Amino acid sequence: MSPEVRADQFAILVRDIPSVSEGQSKKEQVDSFFRAIYPETFYRSMVVTNNKKVNKIYEELVGYKKKLERAEAIYAESKKTNPDALKLSHKTGFLGIIGEKVDSIEFYNDKIKELSQQLEAEQKVTLKEKHQSSALVFFNSRVAAASASQNLHAPIVDTWTVMDAPEPRQLIWTNLSKKFYERIIRQYVVYVIVFLTIFFYIIPIGFISALTTLDNLVKLLPFLKPVVNLKVIKTVLEAYLPQLALIIFLALLPKFLLFLSKAEGIPSESHVVRAASGKYFYFTVLNVFIGVTLGGTLFTSFKSIENDPNSIFRVLAKSLPQNATFFLTFVALKFFVGYGLELSRIVPLIIFHLKKKYLCKTEAEIKEAWAPGDLGYATRFPSDMLIMTIVLCYSVIAPIIIPFGVVYFGLGWLLLRNQTLKVYVPSFESYGRMWPHIHTRMLATLILFQATMLGYFGVKEFKPTPVLFPLPIFSLIFGFICQKKFRRFFVSPALEVVSHELKEVPNMEAVFRSFIPPSLSAGKTDEHQFEDALSHVSKPGSSSV
Amino acid sequence: MSPEVRADQFAILVRDIPSVSEGQSKKEQVDSFFRAIYPETFYRSMVVTNNKKVNKIYEELVGYKKKLERAEAIYAESKKTNPDALKLSHKTGFLGIIGEKVDSIEFYNDKIKELSQQLEAEQKVTLKEKHQSSALVFFNSRVAAASASQNLHAPIVDTWTVMDAPEPRQLIWTNLSKKFYERIIRQYVVYVIVFLTIFFYIIPIGFISALTTLDNLVKLLPFLKPVVNLKVIKTVLEAYLPQLALIIFLALLPKFLLFLSKAEGIPSESHVVRAASGKYFYFTVLNVFIGVTLGGTLFTSFKSIENDPNSIFRVLAKSLPQNATFFLTFVALKFFVGYGLELSRIVPLIIFHLKKKYLCKTEAEIKEAWAPGDLGYATRFPSDMLIMTIVLCYSVIAPIIIPFGVVYFGLGWLLLRNQTLKVYVPSFESYGRMWPHIHTRMLATLILFQATMLGYFGVKEFKPTPVLFPLPIFSLIFGFICQKKFRRFFVSPALEVVSHELKEVPNMEAVFRSFIPPSLSAGKTDEHQFEDALSHVSKPGSSSV
Repeated sequence: MSPEVRADQFAILVRDIPSVSEGQSKKEQVDSFFRAIYPETFYRSMVVTNNKKVNKIYEELVGYKKKLERAEAIYAESKKTNPDALKLSHKTGFLGIIGEKVDSIEFYNDKIKELSQQLEAEQKVTLKEKHQSSALVFFNSRVAAASASQNLHAPIVDTWTVMDAPEPRQLIWTNLSKKFYERIIRQYVVYVIVFLTIFFYIIPIGFISALTTLDNLVKLLPFLKPVVNLKVIKTVLEAYLPQLALIIFLALLPKFLLFLSKAEGIPSESHVVRAASGKYFYFTVLNVFIGVTLGGTLFTSFKSIENDPNSIFRVLAKSLPQNATFFLTFVALKFFVGYGLELSRIVPLIIFHLKKKYLCKTEAEIKEAWAPGDLGYATRFPSDMLIMTIVLCYSVIAPIIIPFGVVYFGLGWLLLRNQTLKVYVPSFESYGRMWPHIHTRMLATLILFQATMLGYFGVKEFKPTPVLFPLPIFSLIFGFICQKKFRRFFVSPALEVVSHELKEVPNMEAVFRSFIPPSLSAGKTDEHQFEDALSHVSKPGSSSV
Repeated sequence: MSPEVRADQFAILVRDIPSVSEGQSKKEQVDSFFRAIYPETFYRSMVVTNNKKVNKIYEELVGYKKKLERAEAIYAESKKTNPDALKLSHKTGFLGIIGEKVDSIEFYNDKIKELSQQLEAEQKVTLKEKHQSSALVFFNSRVAAASASQNLHAPIVDTWTVMDAPEPRQLIWTNLSKKFYERIIRQYVVYVIVFLTIFFYIIPIGFISALTTLDNLVKLLPFLKPVVNLKVIKTVLEAYLPQLALIIFLALLPKFLLFLSKAEGIPSESHVVRAASGKYFYFTVLNVFIGVTLGGTLFTSFKSIENDPNSIFRVLAKSLPQNATFFLTFVALKFFVGYGLELSRIVPLIIFHLKKKYLCKTEAEIKEAWAPGDLGYATRFPSDMLIMTIVLCYSVIAPIIIPFGVVYFGLGWLLLRNQTLKVYVPSFESYGRMWPHIHTRMLATLILFQATMLGYFGVKEFKPTPVLFPLPIFSLIFGFICQKKFRRFFVSPALEVVSHELKEVPNMEAVFRSFIPPSLSAGKTDEHQFEDALSHVSKPGSSSV
C-alpha cells in the first residue's frame, strides 16, 4: 500500500444507525458510540445528510455562474469587433422565447446573489436537521480505520453495519442512507429485472438476425433492391450487416444496467460499475454467444436443455460449427473498426472541434469538451470477455480463429495500455477491486470452453476424450484455491499492509474536509461556521460527552 | 457480556503462520508481526508446540501417581485390620503376571521420580524446539482481542488466519497446527464418509426392521417359540421390539461422528460437538424418519424421487399415514423410558455403587466415579429434533400425536432444566454458539412439515390447499431475516459489548497461564524457568525487538 496519505484509508462508512434516543442528536449518538469503543483512535464523525435540496440550489448556482461567465465572454468578444456592442439580453420565460426581456449579465448576477444566500441558509438547515441514519467515521490511524471496517460493532447485526469508506469522489451520497432491508429488497428486485431483460432481449435479437440476412431485407424493403444488387455493396453488406446490427444493438444496454445497479443502493461508483459490468457480461454471453449459436433453434433447444440439463454441451457442440464464420468476422470487425476508432479517437475529435467552433465560449467550456473521460469498465470488460469466450470456444472447432484472437488481445494490450496511461482520466480509483471480478468470469469462460470442447469431441467420437475429463475439475480447484488465497484481501485491507509507516503525518483536518460534498462546503467564507455545525461535539481535544 | 474476566476473551488463535525466515525463532516472528500492528495492546504470545511426547510422559506420570495413591490407601486399610500386614507387591511384566516381583509403593515412587525428570527435560525440549505453525496471541484489552479476531492480517489470505480463542479447557491442541488446505481437504473427506455412512446405514436398518417382526424372529430362532407364545410377553414384544432395536442401533453412532468431526481439524471441543450433532441430525432424520416412513418401498421410492424430485412430498404424504402407530409408540417410549432413566439416573447410580464397593479405594477415585459428566449435546439435540420432526409432520395426519409431543417437550423442559442446573457439570462453555445451529435445523424441520402437509392435503384433494402455499415462503423469509439480523454475533463478538467495563483489572499473567496445558506447566517449581522458555521475547515491559 502506498505510503501517501489517502483520505479514504482513514475513514469508514457506517450505515443502519438505529434511531436516536430522546434528547440526543444523531451526531452525539455516533460520537459517543465510537468514542466508547475507540477512545484513542477515534477522530470525529460526519453524519450523512439529505442533500437533495441543497444540491439542487447548488447546481442552479453553478449553472448560473457558468451562464454568467459565458455571457461575459460573448460580450467581451463582441466588444472586440464592435466597441459599441449591446449587452446580451434574453427573456426569462420558457426557453427564452416568452416573458420579460432582461439584461443577461445583470440578471445572472442577481440570481447568483440570491441563490448564494439561499444556499447558505439551506446548508445550515441541512447540517442541523437533515441527518440520515448513516455516517462517515474518521480515525487518526490507518490501522484503526482498516480494523474498524472489518469488525462487528453491535450485537444486532443489521444495525451499525460498517465498511471501508470509498474515495470521497466516488461516494454516492443518495445511496448511503438506504436502509438495510431496503437494500436487500432492491437488490433482489433488480436481479429479477435483469433476468427478465436478459431473457426478453433474446426475442429482438432473434428478430434482428432473421431480418438482416440480405435476402430478407430486400424482400421486406423492395426499394433497396437496386442498391443491394451492386456487387461490392452486396458483398460488404452480406459480410457485415448482421454483425453491425448486433454491435449497435449492444450499445443500447449499458446505461440501463448502470442505472439498475445504482438503484440497488450500492454506496460507491466503482462498485456500481462493477455490478453493471457483471450484469452486462451475463447478457453478452447469454445473448450473443449462446443466442447466436443456437440461432433459430433457440427455443426448441431450451426445451430439450430443460428436460435434460446435461444435453447443453451436446447441443452447443452441434450448433457451434455452423456459426464459425459469423464469429470470425465478429472478432475481425471488433479489432479493425473498434480499435481503429479507439486509437484515432476520430469521433471525439470531430465532436470536440464542432463544440469548440460553435458552442464553447469560455476556457472552462473548452476544457470540458476536451476531457477524454473514463475508460468505461462497465462495457469494455464484458465485450472483451465475450471475445475471449468466442475465441476459446471456437479454438477447437475452427482453429483459424486463434490468430484473430491473438491479434485482438495483442493489439488490445498495446493500444489500451497507451490509452489508459496517456489518454483517459480515471474519475475514481477502486484499488484493483475489479480484478477478482474479472478473474472469476475468466475462469467461468475457461470452464465453459473445456465443457464445450469435451462435448464437441464426444460428438465427433474422438477416442482419447476421457483423458481430458480432469481439466474442468482442475480449473475448479484452481478457482477455489485462488478464492481462498486472495479474495478477502480485495474486500478488506490487511492490517500488516496498512501498518506500514506513512511518508508524512496525516493532516486529519484535510482528510475530514475532503469528504464534505461541494454543495455543503461551497461559499464558506469562515471555516469556523462549518466546524460549528458539523463537529461541535467531536472536535478533537474537546471534552468527551 | 459478563463483567468477569474470562481468559479466552483476551486471546486470539492464530493459525497458518508462514515458515520462519533464517535466524529468527517462531516466537520472535509472531511477536514482531503482532507488535508492529498492535504496538499498544499486544501483550505476549504463546507458540503452539507439538506436545505428543510430553503428553505421553505426563499421562504416565499421572497414572503412576494414581497407582501410588491407591496402593497407599490399600496398605493403610489393611494395616487398620492387621497391623502386621505386608506391603503391597506386584510383578513388573505383562499384566502383573510375569516378571520380577517388586514392592509396589517403592516401585511407584521410583517411577514417579524417574518420569518427573524425564518430563522436565522433555518440557524444555518441547518449548524450545517443537514449535508449530500456530500460536495463541494475548492482548491486554477485550476490545483489542475481539477486534483482532475479526481482522484480516496478511495480504495472502491463507496465512496468519485468526479466530477468537476458545476456552483453554476446550482447546484441542493437536488440531491447532493443522495446515489451511489440510483442514479443507480433511473436511471434504469427512463429509464424503458421513454421506456414505448415512446412506449405507439404511441397509442394516432395513434388515433390522424386517427381522424384528415377531413372526420373523420365531422363524429364524425357533428356540424362542415357547417364550414368545406367552401372551403378555408377546404383546410387549410386538409393540416395542422394532422401536427398541432402533433405539439401541442409534446409540452406536455418536462416538464415530465425534471422532470424524475431530478429524476435520476443528480447534475447539464445543465446535466438534456442534459438528457431530449436525451430522447426527441428518442421520436421524434421513434414516429414522424418512427411512422408516418409506420402509420397504425405500429403494423404489428413491428411484422415482430421483426421476422427479418434486414427487418427494407426494411420496412422503402417501407413506406417512401407514407409520403413524410406529412413531406414536416411538415418542411414548422415548418419554416413558428415556425420561424415566434420565430423572432417576438409575444406571449411573448402580454403576457408582458397584464402583465404590469394588474398585474405588481413594477419595479421588470415588469423586471421579460420582462425576455426572456433560449433558451430551451431540446426541441429545438431534434426538429431540427427531421427535420434533415426527410430531410436526404427523400433527396433520394423526393429530393424536400432538398431546404426546406436548408431554414430551413439556416434561423435557421441566426435567432437563433440573438436570442441567443441578446435575450435569458442563466441561466447557461455548457462549450459546449451539443456538443458531439448532435454530436453522428447527426451521428446516418446520419447512419439511409445511411441505409434507401441502403434499398430504394435495393427495387428499383438500380444496383450500393453495391458501397455504405462502407458508413455507414465510418460513424461508423468517429464516433469512434471522440469519441477517443475528447470525454474525454468534460467530464474532460485537465491539460495543466487549467495550463494557470490567469488574476488575485483568491479571494478564493469570490469563496467559490459564492457556498452558497441564503437561507443560506441571512440576514447575520455579516459575521463572517458564517465563524464560515461553516469553523471553515478549515479556511485557521488555524492550521491543
